[in-house]
Amino acid sequence: MRKVVLGLGISLDGYIARPDGSVDFLFMPKDYSMAKFFATIDTAILGRKTYDVVKAMGGGFGGKVRYYVMSRKLPAGERDGLVFTRESPSQLVASIRRQKGKDIWLMGGGELARDFLKADLVDELYLGVLPLLIGEGIPLFPPGFPQRNFALVENKTYSRGMIGLKYRRAGKKGKKR
Amino acid sequence: MRKVVLGLGISLDGYIARPDGSVDFLFMPKDYSMAKFFATIDTAILGRKTYDVVKAMGGGFGGKVRYYVMSRKLPAGERDGLVFTRESPSQLVASIRRQKGKDIWLMGGGELARDFLKADLVDELYLGVLPLLIGEGIPLFPPGFPQRNFALVENKTYSRGMIGLKYRRAGKKGKKR
Repeated sequence: MRKVVLGLGISLDGYIARPDGSVDFLFMPKDYSMAKFFATIDTAILGRKTYDVVKAMGGGFGGKVRYYVMSRKLPAGERDGLVFTRESPSQLVASIRRQKGKDIWLMGGGELARDFLKADLVDELYLGVLPLLIGEGIPLFPPGFPQRNFALVENKTYSRGMIGLKYRRAGKKGKKR
Repeated sequence: MRKVVLGLGISLDGYIARPDGSVDFLFMPKDYSMAKFFATIDTAILGRKTYDVVKAMGGGFGGKVRYYVMSRKLPAGERDGLVFTRESPSQLVASIRRQKGKDIWLMGGGELARDFLKADLVDELYLGVLPLLIGEGIPLFPPGFPQRNFALVENKTYSRGMIGLKYRRAGKKGKKR
């Protein structure tokens, strides 16, 4: 089954961005590469706010990845190479899974992560933790979802003190894994 | 100089306790020991709320550690083997440092951690990160302090997916370290 992977870089105090959305505190260690991760996914899901931030920062949505932007406000449909959808997380994941393909990258932000965790749709976590406390910002895990247990799959130390963590959902009742 | 070490076990979403103060989600891996850490400290500082929680849970404040409870409400002075103090974090740390001794364990909670981070008094972080998201609780790093950079000193994986992280304060201006 195509897994949903919540994958993001965060500060040690759990923020994906500063209050204004900027991510200047993130860095990519020389000995770290996202290539291996990108090889495992062909689909990405993001929230409308994250979409706005990426656009405002001049970021693009290129490559061979199919992007889904979840928004209750924007009209649904395909535009500029992205698919805008008003479906719920469960509906969207189910419809993506009806097609064959690779894993699904849940690229944020925090509110979307919470919605997916509420619906217990997050199969894996893939976190890069930077060695600093930024003190305020947009949390990856805003409060308001039930406890979710995970199993640590990988813990690696990269240069400049970044740690790379992989977890997979564990202890999920009624589901064989 | 006697270092201030913020040392705690946390959930992956950064909580030191559930909303009611319970810490049932914490566990101690068989291959992990606090003994090495306890050998480096002889003093502990905790907030009044943490003190109340430890007391309510039947926990004790024994051993050879000198405990300081920071409270603006309780009368200052030594009682039941603990020192209650109304001093500010800076005052307290300065007065402890005037005496010779080992490092100082900042044992929480989050509000106290924030006060110490605001005053830039945290020299080291010593975190045990458990492999689960509890979804709500008392955060170790509540928002509201300036950015603090750290250097990763140690990252170890223990059984049952706990990771042990040590950081030391880095990039502190005007201070040689």
